[in-house]
Amino acid sequence: MSGKIRAQLIGATGYGGLGILELLMQHPNFEIAALVARDDAGKRIDDVYPHLAGRCDLVVQAPDSVEVGADCDVVIFATPDRVSQQYAASLTERGVRFIDYSGDFRFTSTDDYARYAERHPSIKETTHDAASLLGKNAYGVSELNAEAIAGAPMVGNPGCFAIGIILGLAPLYRAGLVADGLVAVDGLTGSSGAGKKPAPLQHFSHLNDNVVPYRVLNHQHVVEAEMTLGRLGAGGGATVDFIPHLLGTTRGILNTMHLTLTKSVSRDALMEMFREAYAGHPFVRVLDTPPTLKGPLGSNYIDLSVFVAGDSKRAVVMSSIDNLMKGQSGSAMQNLNLMFGLPQTAGMERGPLYP
Amino acid sequence: MSGKIRAQLIGATGYGGLGILELLMQHPNFEIAALVARDDAGKRIDDVYPHLAGRCDLVVQAPDSVEVGADCDVVIFATPDRVSQQYAASLTERGVRFIDYSGDFRFTSTDDYARYAERHPSIKETTHDAASLLGKNAYGVSELNAEAIAGAPMVGNPGCFAIGIILGLAPLYRAGLVADGLVAVDGLTGSSGAGKKPAPLQHFSHLNDNVVPYRVLNHQHVVEAEMTLGRLGAGGGATVDFIPHLLGTTRGILNTMHLTLTKSVSRDALMEMFREAYAGHPFVRVLDTPPTLKGPLGSNYIDLSVFVAGDSKRAVVMSSIDNLMKGQSGSAMQNLNLMFGLPQTAGMERGPLYP
Amino acid sequence: MSGKIRAQLIGATGYGGLGILELLMQHPNFEIAALVARDDAGKRIDDVYPHLAGRCDLVVQAPDSVEVGADCDVVIFATPDRVSQQYAASLTERGVRFIDYSGDFRFTSTDDYARYAERHPSIKETTHDAASLLGKNAYGVSELNAEAIAGAPMVGNPGCFAIGIILGLAPLYRAGLVADGLVAVDGLTGSSGAGKKPAPLQHFSHLNDNVVPYRVLNHQHVVEAEMTLGRLGAGGGATVDFIPHLLGTTRGILNTMHLTLTKSVSRDALMEMFREAYAGHPFVRVLDTPPTLKGPLGSNYIDLSVFVAGDSKRAVVMSSIDNLMKGQSGSAMQNLNLMFGLPQTAGMERGPLYP
Amino acid sequence: MSGKIRAQLIGATGYGGLGILELLMQHPNFEIAALVARDDAGKRIDDVYPHLAGRCDLVVQAPDSVEVGADCDVVIFATPDRVSQQYAASLTERGVRFIDYSGDFRFTSTDDYARYAERHPSIKETTHDAASLLGKNAYGVSELNAEAIAGAPMVGNPGCFAIGIILGLAPLYRAGLVADGLVAVDGLTGSSGAGKKPAPLQHFSHLNDNVVPYRVLNHQHVVEAEMTLGRLGAGGGATVDFIPHLLGTTRGILNTMHLTLTKSVSRDALMEMFREAYAGHPFVRVLDTPPTLKGPLGSNYIDLSVFVAGDSKRAVVMSSIDNLMKGQSGSAMQNLNLMFGLPQTAGMERGPLYP
Repeated sequence: MSGKIRAQLIGATGYGGLGILELLMQHPNFEIAALVARDDAGKRIDDVYPHLAGRCDLVVQAPDSVEVGADCDVVIFATPDRVSQQYAASLTERGVRFIDYSGDFRFTSTDDYARYAERHPSIKETTHDAASLLGKNAYGVSELNAEAIAGAPMVGNPGCFAIGIILGLAPLYRAGLVADGLVAVDGLTGSSGAGKKPAPLQHFSHLNDNVVPYRVLNHQHVVEAEMTLGRLGAGGGATVDFIPHLLGTTRGILNTMHLTLTKSVSRDALMEMFREAYAGHPFVRVLDTPPTLKGPLGSNYIDLSVFVAGDSKRAVVMSSIDNLMKGQSGSAMQNLNLMFGLPQTAGMERGPLYP
Repeated sequence: MSGKIRAQLIGATGYGGLGILELLMQHPNFEIAALVARDDAGKRIDDVYPHLAGRCDLVVQAPDSVEVGADCDVVIFATPDRVSQQYAASLTERGVRFIDYSGDFRFTSTDDYARYAERHPSIKETTHDAASLLGKNAYGVSELNAEAIAGAPMVGNPGCFAIGIILGLAPLYRAGLVADGLVAVDGLTGSSGAGKKPAPLQHFSHLNDNVVPYRVLNHQHVVEAEMTLGRLGAGGGATVDFIPHLLGTTRGILNTMHLTLTKSVSRDALMEMFREAYAGHPFVRVLDTPPTLKGPLGSNYIDLSVFVAGDSKRAVVMSSIDNLMKGQSGSAMQNLNLMFGLPQTAGMERGPLYP
Repeated sequence: MSGKIRAQLIGATGYGGLGILELLMQHPNFEIAALVARDDAGKRIDDVYPHLAGRCDLVVQAPDSVEVGADCDVVIFATPDRVSQQYAASLTERGVRFIDYSGDFRFTSTDDYARYAERHPSIKETTHDAASLLGKNAYGVSELNAEAIAGAPMVGNPGCFAIGIILGLAPLYRAGLVADGLVAVDGLTGSSGAGKKPAPLQHFSHLNDNVVPYRVLNHQHVVEAEMTLGRLGAGGGATVDFIPHLLGTTRGILNTMHLTLTKSVSRDALMEMFREAYAGHPFVRVLDTPPTLKGPLGSNYIDLSVFVAGDSKRAVVMSSIDNLMKGQSGSAMQNLNLMFGLPQTAGMERGPLYP
Repeated sequence: MSGKIRAQLIGATGYGGLGILELLMQHPNFEIAALVARDDAGKRIDDVYPHLAGRCDLVVQAPDSVEVGADCDVVIFATPDRVSQQYAASLTERGVRFIDYSGDFRFTSTDDYARYAERHPSIKETTHDAASLLGKNAYGVSELNAEAIAGAPMVGNPGCFAIGIILGLAPLYRAGLVADGLVAVDGLTGSSGAGKKPAPLQHFSHLNDNVVPYRVLNHQHVVEAEMTLGRLGAGGGATVDFIPHLLGTTRGILNTMHLTLTKSVSRDALMEMFREAYAGHPFVRVLDTPPTLKGPLGSNYIDLSVFVAGDSKRAVVMSSIDNLMKGQSGSAMQNLNLMFGLPQTAGMERGPLYP
């Protein structure tokens, strides 16, 4: 026995599966129990992803050939919405913890889930198939919910846009500084958030050199951002007018967020508030200069900065992440570290890649 | 004699000069009187820009070898700020009309100019060297000022960010629909707006796959947008919180603009208002779907759409242009057409390039 | 009656159909008789391609609702292999001329066609369904076959890689200068040659910033290049070792071609040979400097240059085209102009787009 | 005392300096003694490179404020040609070993150096200022010269194009399989090889979506490739006709190399020969499929594959590297590991970044 934590990975061949596989491979405390996926089952993972040649030769197993939760300490669902719901009861009964990349366990009540499900373009039903477990789960924003995550049987990894909005605005909502709880957010995202499957929006000839606004004022990630931010501080609610813009680049999300302050606060005071809020959080960097999309690329950092306008009565916050790291697998790894009592940074010493 | 309008082009070797040169070359009513530039003087223009091989073999002339305004019907200054000011009096005395790409003749009073000059990163003095001519000039937003442009001795071509903001918001300001006159704008721009001169921000290895916010809440183009919008309708003033974002792409500006409406208005009603406002304007396209950065690429179109949020109490307007066309040389050509009584579209039948 | 040549366009919604549609729209002598396509039938073409808004509102017709060849002077098949073969006999009988984008009519004998069809990844049969017409058709390299094209009932538009190889090497093969008839070619291509349909190779996240060699030494375009070059001059045959490389860019093909000369020839002499070979050909530019991918972008030019190595015993030729223009729709327009006795450049005054 | 190997880094603020800094930071056996650079001296390195925020706050020291070779175990010159030559004698006398990124110590005789210097665009003199040391140095291709590197007082890190050509062709030259010793190479490179300094070729608006062949048949890296390959096996000499192509991407070099074999050899046999040649070399991956530019991105791998044409009488070899890793800092780290008796992979466990 290696003494390592054994992780079973469901949905191993998408970008989300790939991301956590690579983090686990270089992690001192984890090992892969199984790679499971419907697509490419039977293939070696380095045939699916040739950049893994010489690094990982595990074979992808078909879902029906593997018992979910068997022979492992944790299950990682890098799967679409409504997959992990089907396995949640069984895993919980057996005492196998899990983390899920979809919206299935981001919400702690059926009402909250329903509001999300209604908004989601590919979810038909709004009832949760493991409703009785909602409330036991933790929402996986490590910087806000570390304690809950550490103890939860299941963690709902946050949406890629949501985490950048939430961490960028939490200090202001907590301090009651957001007038009417209203913020206007322009989110700029690379194409990899849409995953590996070819589609017209992600077709190279269309997207290259392009910017394509989509799901204007209607993106499902807003729901978890509004709920999370709205319940901070006095809990006056939050409204996020969100416009996602798809960019002709592969990785990264940069959110630019505009709000009116409830009172004048200088930029220095806001920066100090942000620095205090995130002191001791190893992946949050509060920068004097505006964050750039490439600043955190390949790493788990979130880069933040805040500016003021109109005699300090309005604020603009910018946050930048690698959408496949802090926006997905990096957060998952951070949450797994919390779940197993490891340092948050374990396995994630990798810095950004520049240029 | 060809009977064509003879245009003398000052600053011929920058991207702005190139753009108008190419439009004039294919224009039925214009011809080039001289190409003048400090850089690359003495070279053939197709040695400076090899893509012009077989199309244009004119030689670039040094400024001191050519009399500005001689042997021509119009002078085009594709030059930095404070160049055309030096020639304005002399040209006006001789009755030679001109158009200028910089901020020199965008403002019709010395006060307005001073507010702009203060904000500009490379203008040292705020007094205008041809102050007595301000008021005779026209600000070159063809869709708003066609009559003034047609008769003016000099036209100040608008800033690339400004024109997208102004045309995107003019119908709302004119109708008094913008609460507090306040709008938050995230502008996304390709690199070519910064011109041809190598610089760290435009260095390929830095900018590729990147988004770099810059001059946060401090861009000089905002001044002309605020003045123009603020004087529409009842003239309640305008405040534009503007964040320019430099993208890793060559061409295009997409502005996403958030505002609170003074009363609820449905999307349909707003779209109808936009369609009416721009009926008969051949380069404005009001689209049902969000405009994309590549939609107008290579053409003089501005693509617009408007959406509503919060029970139709807030609006989001998006505008997209090719920054080197509608954002620069295309607007200049449109203004020149107006100045010489030609159809606005003359010489600009070229459609967008896609994919 | 407009007196214009009426063109019926089959396969109107792919990039090839779009390209010729846009050229025909701005052509003084042509008009569109019908847009026909299986995909998106019933939609307005500007809903399929929003950049056409305000420019073209024709409705795409389903193939079964239109008689191919009816009410038109020419049919343009922007369709895959083995489509135009099915209509060729009927059209010929009715005296309706056509041009085809696929390999169907690039070869003038069944043997030649069979060699091509064997190599093609998506052609199952190697017998031609309109075999009796082969020999009446013309291969559409305008610069080499203008006379045949002008008189042919049907023209096979050349492959995008082939035309850059053929025009780049024709002067050398014709002069018997290519040792063993052997040339090594590295072709670099943008993604748009693969068309509009999403596919893993053209998925943005995969292709962005990437170079992917594919069909190594096995691309079907080589067949027409080898046949055409091998029959020039003394006709000693040609062997093209061809490696296509897919680039993370949208448009353009740059071929770099290495060969040993049968005798030493100076660079100056070779350049002179190229200039003479292409004198009077308006779309061929022989450049002193190496051609760049963006040099001809958006235009119908082919840019060429030749260099020598090893005491002038070896030559390197580079050619650059826009794969959707000279490599596809531009050549088709040029051929249509020849077929109808118009100047080759009619409708194609558009210059390259730079930057 | 930490017991770590202390490295003094000269030229710390270029991309080469940045690359080795980041590798040393995560290396268990090294520590930074000093960061030295002319540019940005006095600044914190994370102000120069904001992506290092929270990771490294060392201050860049001016060259005249630091004694080269003092208080360290090894000096790393990430500097242009002819810098390390000036310090070589002094360092050698004091017994301080060094590695140099330029061509200064890639050659072991003054004749060889002179042939290189003649070809180099920015070297004026062809005499070496530390000529007496040539012969003691080792050329830093780790896979070919491990023993010499381990013992040498100074190592000349290879050129980025050269290492991909050399490792791709060494097995064939060693086996005497290259007819006439002649190979035609098309090299495709990202922009970062040109460094951090803005220049017209690397200006974003020019390079984006472009391919620019440059220094056609005249690149200085060819010299070291020809010398190294020509002396393998029977040593019949080597001639490399090399065309570098600058791509609109940041990282990576993909070389496609064409040669005639001295006898027919099957692809299988060649692949086996490559696999044997590189067995036990942890950074060389011999792939069945063509390597891609992104395959090794961010890592120190070189990906290779070989194909045959013409009844196995001709071969095509492709190699792909990250030009800033295996092509520069990764090779330097690998050489440093060899120099200090450490595993070649120490500090370089980082895998490629995909997508």
